[in-house]
Amino acid sequence: MDFQHSPKVLALQERLERFMEEHIYPAERTYYEQVFSGDRYATVPLLEELKPKARAAGLWNLFLPGPHGGGLTNLEYAPLAEVMGRVEWASEVFNCSAPDTGNMEILELYGSPEQKKQWLEPLLAGEIRSAFSMTEPEVASSDATNIQCEIRRDGDEYVINGRKWFTSGALNERCKLLIVMGKTDPHHPDKHKQQSMILVPKDTPGVKIVRDITAFGYDDAPLGHPEIVYEDVRVPASNILLGEGRGFEIAQGRLGPGRIHHCMRLIGAAQRALELMCERAESRTAFGRKLSEHGTVREDIARSYCEIEQARLLTLKAADKMDREGNKAARDLIAAAKIVVPSMAARVIDRAIQVHGGKGVSQDTFLAKAYVYARYIRIGDGPDQVHLAALAKQVLQQRGGQR
Amino acid sequence: MDFQHSPKVLALQERLERFMEEHIYPAERTYYEQVFSGDRYATVPLLEELKPKARAAGLWNLFLPGPHGGGLTNLEYAPLAEVMGRVEWASEVFNCSAPDTGNMEILELYGSPEQKKQWLEPLLAGEIRSAFSMTEPEVASSDATNIQCEIRRDGDEYVINGRKWFTSGALNERCKLLIVMGKTDPHHPDKHKQQSMILVPKDTPGVKIVRDITAFGYDDAPLGHPEIVYEDVRVPASNILLGEGRGFEIAQGRLGPGRIHHCMRLIGAAQRALELMCERAESRTAFGRKLSEHGTVREDIARSYCEIEQARLLTLKAADKMDREGNKAARDLIAAAKIVVPSMAARVIDRAIQVHGGKGVSQDTFLAKAYVYARYIRIGDGPDQVHLAALAKQVLQQRGGQR
Amino acid sequence: MDFQHSPKVLALQERLERFMEEHIYPAERTYYEQVFSGDRYATVPLLEELKPKARAAGLWNLFLPGPHGGGLTNLEYAPLAEVMGRVEWASEVFNCSAPDTGNMEILELYGSPEQKKQWLEPLLAGEIRSAFSMTEPEVASSDATNIQCEIRRDGDEYVINGRKWFTSGALNERCKLLIVMGKTDPHHPDKHKQQSMILVPKDTPGVKIVRDITAFGYDDAPLGHPEIVYEDVRVPASNILLGEGRGFEIAQGRLGPGRIHHCMRLIGAAQRALELMCERAESRTAFGRKLSEHGTVREDIARSYCEIEQARLLTLKAADKMDREGNKAARDLIAAAKIVVPSMAARVIDRAIQVHGGKGVSQDTFLAKAYVYARYIRIGDGPDQVHLAALAKQVLQQRGGQR
Amino acid sequence: MDFQHSPKVLALQERLERFMEEHIYPAERTYYEQVFSGDRYATVPLLEELKPKARAAGLWNLFLPGPHGGGLTNLEYAPLAEVMGRVEWASEVFNCSAPDTGNMEILELYGSPEQKKQWLEPLLAGEIRSAFSMTEPEVASSDATNIQCEIRRDGDEYVINGRKWFTSGALNERCKLLIVMGKTDPHHPDKHKQQSMILVPKDTPGVKIVRDITAFGYDDAPLGHPEIVYEDVRVPASNILLGEGRGFEIAQGRLGPGRIHHCMRLIGAAQRALELMCERAESRTAFGRKLSEHGTVREDIARSYCEIEQARLLTLKAADKMDREGNKAARDLIAAAKIVVPSMAARVIDRAIQVHGGKGVSQDTFLAKAYVYARYIRIGDGPDQVHLAALAKQVLQQRGGQR
Repeated sequence: MDFQHSPKVLALQERLERFMEEHIYPAERTYYEQVFSGDRYATVPLLEELKPKARAAGLWNLFLPGPHGGGLTNLEYAPLAEVMGRVEWASEVFNCSAPDTGNMEILELYGSPEQKKQWLEPLLAGEIRSAFSMTEPEVASSDATNIQCEIRRDGDEYVINGRKWFTSGALNERCKLLIVMGKTDPHHPDKHKQQSMILVPKDTPGVKIVRDITAFGYDDAPLGHPEIVYEDVRVPASNILLGEGRGFEIAQGRLGPGRIHHCMRLIGAAQRALELMCERAESRTAFGRKLSEHGTVREDIARSYCEIEQARLLTLKAADKMDREGNKAARDLIAAAKIVVPSMAARVIDRAIQVHGGKGVSQDTFLAKAYVYARYIRIGDGPDQVHLAALAKQVLQQRGGQR
Repeated sequence: MDFQHSPKVLALQERLERFMEEHIYPAERTYYEQVFSGDRYATVPLLEELKPKARAAGLWNLFLPGPHGGGLTNLEYAPLAEVMGRVEWASEVFNCSAPDTGNMEILELYGSPEQKKQWLEPLLAGEIRSAFSMTEPEVASSDATNIQCEIRRDGDEYVINGRKWFTSGALNERCKLLIVMGKTDPHHPDKHKQQSMILVPKDTPGVKIVRDITAFGYDDAPLGHPEIVYEDVRVPASNILLGEGRGFEIAQGRLGPGRIHHCMRLIGAAQRALELMCERAESRTAFGRKLSEHGTVREDIARSYCEIEQARLLTLKAADKMDREGNKAARDLIAAAKIVVPSMAARVIDRAIQVHGGKGVSQDTFLAKAYVYARYIRIGDGPDQVHLAALAKQVLQQRGGQR
Repeated sequence: MDFQHSPKVLALQERLERFMEEHIYPAERTYYEQVFSGDRYATVPLLEELKPKARAAGLWNLFLPGPHGGGLTNLEYAPLAEVMGRVEWASEVFNCSAPDTGNMEILELYGSPEQKKQWLEPLLAGEIRSAFSMTEPEVASSDATNIQCEIRRDGDEYVINGRKWFTSGALNERCKLLIVMGKTDPHHPDKHKQQSMILVPKDTPGVKIVRDITAFGYDDAPLGHPEIVYEDVRVPASNILLGEGRGFEIAQGRLGPGRIHHCMRLIGAAQRALELMCERAESRTAFGRKLSEHGTVREDIARSYCEIEQARLLTLKAADKMDREGNKAARDLIAAAKIVVPSMAARVIDRAIQVHGGKGVSQDTFLAKAYVYARYIRIGDGPDQVHLAALAKQVLQQRGGQR
Repeated sequence: MDFQHSPKVLALQERLERFMEEHIYPAERTYYEQVFSGDRYATVPLLEELKPKARAAGLWNLFLPGPHGGGLTNLEYAPLAEVMGRVEWASEVFNCSAPDTGNMEILELYGSPEQKKQWLEPLLAGEIRSAFSMTEPEVASSDATNIQCEIRRDGDEYVINGRKWFTSGALNERCKLLIVMGKTDPHHPDKHKQQSMILVPKDTPGVKIVRDITAFGYDDAPLGHPEIVYEDVRVPASNILLGEGRGFEIAQGRLGPGRIHHCMRLIGAAQRALELMCERAESRTAFGRKLSEHGTVREDIARSYCEIEQARLLTLKAADKMDREGNKAARDLIAAAKIVVPSMAARVIDRAIQVHGGKGVSQDTFLAKAYVYARYIRIGDGPDQVHLAALAKQVLQQRGGQR
């Protein structure tokens, strides 16, 4: 047992932190100015400027284990994703942002050579963006067997009809690909073989972006997570991923790493919130004493430290188990991290907001938006309740859980 | 002891609920459509349409105890404010919305006949709106002695210099009056006699609205809570309220009722969230059962009921003590309500959001914005920590609190 | 609506508080000395001394609504039970202690004239004690349909066979009567008609007290809550209560008031804990300041006040609904109080313990034992989970609960 | 970074678990029978039987890093202490029980050769027991500068006068040594140089054990944690440890490992509680379903797993930092573990109790007593509040804590 990161990881971490100091933190205000001027869903010049720099610095596609990526294990990637998570939009600079990371993984693992050539290569190069279109407004999509979107074979094509929302990233100008989950065989006796996944170019006729959905008031420009209607959308039969009936299986494979990536980033957000809370507490005075000398503020700080550190270790252990035993065997720890981290981050950020007073809820710090991200992830990629039930099942089977 | 509202109150409540059913709930979408089309801070036609109807229905200025208002006690007003709180913007239809209610109270209590004529009358008639400009970005304003805004006497005028933010309502087109808190005597040995309050017409030269502040992404149009710079703003000396050095005293008087009104409205928001949660739980199915048959959803519902009911009773008791013994004597229960209710509402609404999944964070229900309101009130009108400390002091003096 | 107790109640409360000051608080240590010297389950001389005094003071059987009792409503009795609850053993001095109160109610409501003469009269006079024998070690007794104890008719007698535990009070020397719940008709198609209740004199052959059960280390002498084996216990057929198959119905009727009485007493325990916490905080110094000047202690005090006051109001409202609409209609509020109060009391007492340090867990204050009482009631008379599920059902039916 | 224990540790763990299976779990009932029969503070025959077996199995003094112990690092010892913590009294079988472990460490580090010969050797051999006499009833001892016990030099002797309590273990028949903390120089300008530690044979004239103190009803026989009066107790001057004025320094050194050992054991207790909860949930039925199929029970199980795993990782990381950088540098993580683990254990055990119903609070499982141990440690070795304040100070200095 060893709690030190390897020299390789420490070196990468240092390089990444230097990059953040030089290029990201100083540009936080610029980013939002660019987003809020003109078309909110247009390409953000700043991002395009920084990407080549990140690539040149060897900080590109670090999330991807294989040769096309950084060659890092999940355990090695974790502390890097944490650093990226300190700024909402930083991950994309390193081509490590959701939902593209998950989509690239799917294509890498399950894509045909043609699919890889057409979509994976430009995604890996950061030239286009993609979206993942699974959640539906009409049904409890946390239970994937509820999904209603229809993918019907018609000769050499598939015809897609359905309504999706929270398709994150789909409003962005550079988003070119939608990976759509639907049912090719809604009456298959095995409920987990009814679904398929299919590649849909965003400009296919019949793809209608109905409206953007906000999350606690944020439209999340320049990404957006719109509602989309698929109306008789036709794509070549070869666009199916892996084959009919494999959708559930792919989703399961995709969601594990996706969830743990969210956890890593949220730990970074929480850590930064704690640092901000400390700074604020040292610099503000109320009722004759610095906030940092108020016992209740101190408790908030100490508890936040304890909670972050614990959640970080849990996430690292989950990543390690994924590396060592595979994503399926690590389901218990992935679920545990997914249950623990978003709530922890929301709680820590909430305390930081409270210490900041009005400023904390405003646009003047990263806190309010980070809070909403953390809160949203308690629903996104499966609500807490679903993960709690799934984890409990495993713990019960093992009569107390694997130690 | 009696837990039944009087027939008079029940009749008003029924009338108000009928009004909500007929005019408010059906117009919820329209309201936001009107706000989002064109100038976000313009007058909302819907509001102006509904106000005369509310007035005709005898549902006007109910918040105000005296002859100009509904003649109701705080205890009588509470269940009505609760009903209004079920829709974010409903209170204004009845001329019972913050911050105008507090401002009208101040003018009624402390205004000179001229001040009343000029400002109170059009406010009571719902013709203009007002704002309360106290919180400053540079200091912990929860400790009012920190306030830095300068109000300097210069002949027959006062000259105001300072920077404020979270001046709620000030961006609205119809907002004509700013009540500004600042220091006329920053070196007065009694720290609570340094402050004064002064009436500033919004169109006075030197009043510069710098920018709007968002709260978790919401700009709160059509009200807004902007940052305002006062630069050599000159107003007649007669604009001072009550006299120099009385600002702290007025603020104390103003904030008690203001806080309890927020609590009443938030109870309404929480109650509506619970009702929505029940509906959703009965209508959605996941993993083979209605959500309402999942034990964890049931616990959320039962706990929410318990928490709302307790907070409501506490708020009613605080209102009763205000009526019976005055705002000052009721400080302990007002503080208790202010501590309890916003957190309770945030918690209940958060659970309702979770049961709604993605829809819960979106613009498709009232939940996300209501959550932000509840969360914000944990800071607004004094952060939880300040009220906890103040309440503790009283409980300690009474060795366990008045029972 | 009115939050003031009536003059009648205030007078009784004052008289009761005077009695507590004169006779109970000064004797707290003596009580335990008497219990711990000699036979732990013997009659405690102090109690027998104080009972006639309480009776003479008109503070006797106040719990009982009818002419044999104090003629008080539940709402009137609540603040008195609260005062009694400040000392673990005080209720018995006023003949208002569980489980006898519930047993007397049953006998008053459902007993035959003979049963009343034999058992109710000496109970009302405080001459004997009784126990309620329902919970079984082998099954989840919170679901009363699980109960296995057999009550078999055999000619003019019933023969009882079964194993019970947590039969509170049964070890006490003066306990003469056991009210036993069992099944007379285990195959009745209506699961709620299988059970009956029967009166069993404790000295009947076959009644074997196997051992005492402790709760967190306390044997709860001089009452005890032993495990009892009923082995071919024969009693006359006339000992059945109300008739065969009526056991569930009686239990339901008994448990409502019993639960709310526990809540009232626990509020008294929590209130006293808060008062102790205040005293301790004012009298101890650590790290250069009185504990009462530490922000975290202040928050504990303020939060405790808020929680007690809310729980008290909820309990009073439940009592009022019982008076006004009957125990059945008040099930929702009784459940709410039963969910809220024991947890609240445990939390408040836990904080008081923490402020007391080692002394808090010791025998030197009433806190440790009061904590265990509160914690135990989260299980006794139905675990939290059962009440949460039952309450949720009602709230769902009413789409948000009766306001 | 690596989350696997070394083969050496895994082998020891397996051997220890086998020992527990063979000798400890089957004897749990016997242990308490022996304690409760006759003199409660006498030597327990079972312990004396098992000690030689543990020694023969190479499971002796594993807590001690040096050559006299197991030669294990803190990180290596942690999973073993966890296993021992599964049974309240198991640690002593392996001579790894508090307070003797801390006392042996002190003697090993600071004892003179004579002191080691007289006291350390028989302690290491498990022949005698010792106690640590620091906490005083009259002052907030969490702030060690408050301590009042006087240690006055008088020629070749020291004379001790003071009152202590919670001197754990001191009632036991085999306890021969008291390590007493007091002030040799109460007016020293450096508050941390006023205290000294001195060795007091328990049979020295003037050592008066006044009474035992209970914790939530438990007298903790056969150890006890009595109140002791030291009245003109005279010991040779050579009994001072390390020298006058070094008491605070020794205490600091002692308490770090002592705290982390408590954490390790409590994790074992929590883990066992979770396992029991799982078993119970699978074997009980209520309202037509196994408890393990109730969603709320499932959530309790899943959350418990998450909390245990996180607390375990935090404790391991603290142990690793102690090994790597020393106890002083690891103060932040030791404090974090001490804050987190006892509360976590109390919470998990509380849930297990709830799932067990009445049985959970009774003597029929290990839960009730384990709960009290966990709760007590929130006070013992420094209350939560003190550790929170100390940790916050460090986190603030590092502006967010060392990652």
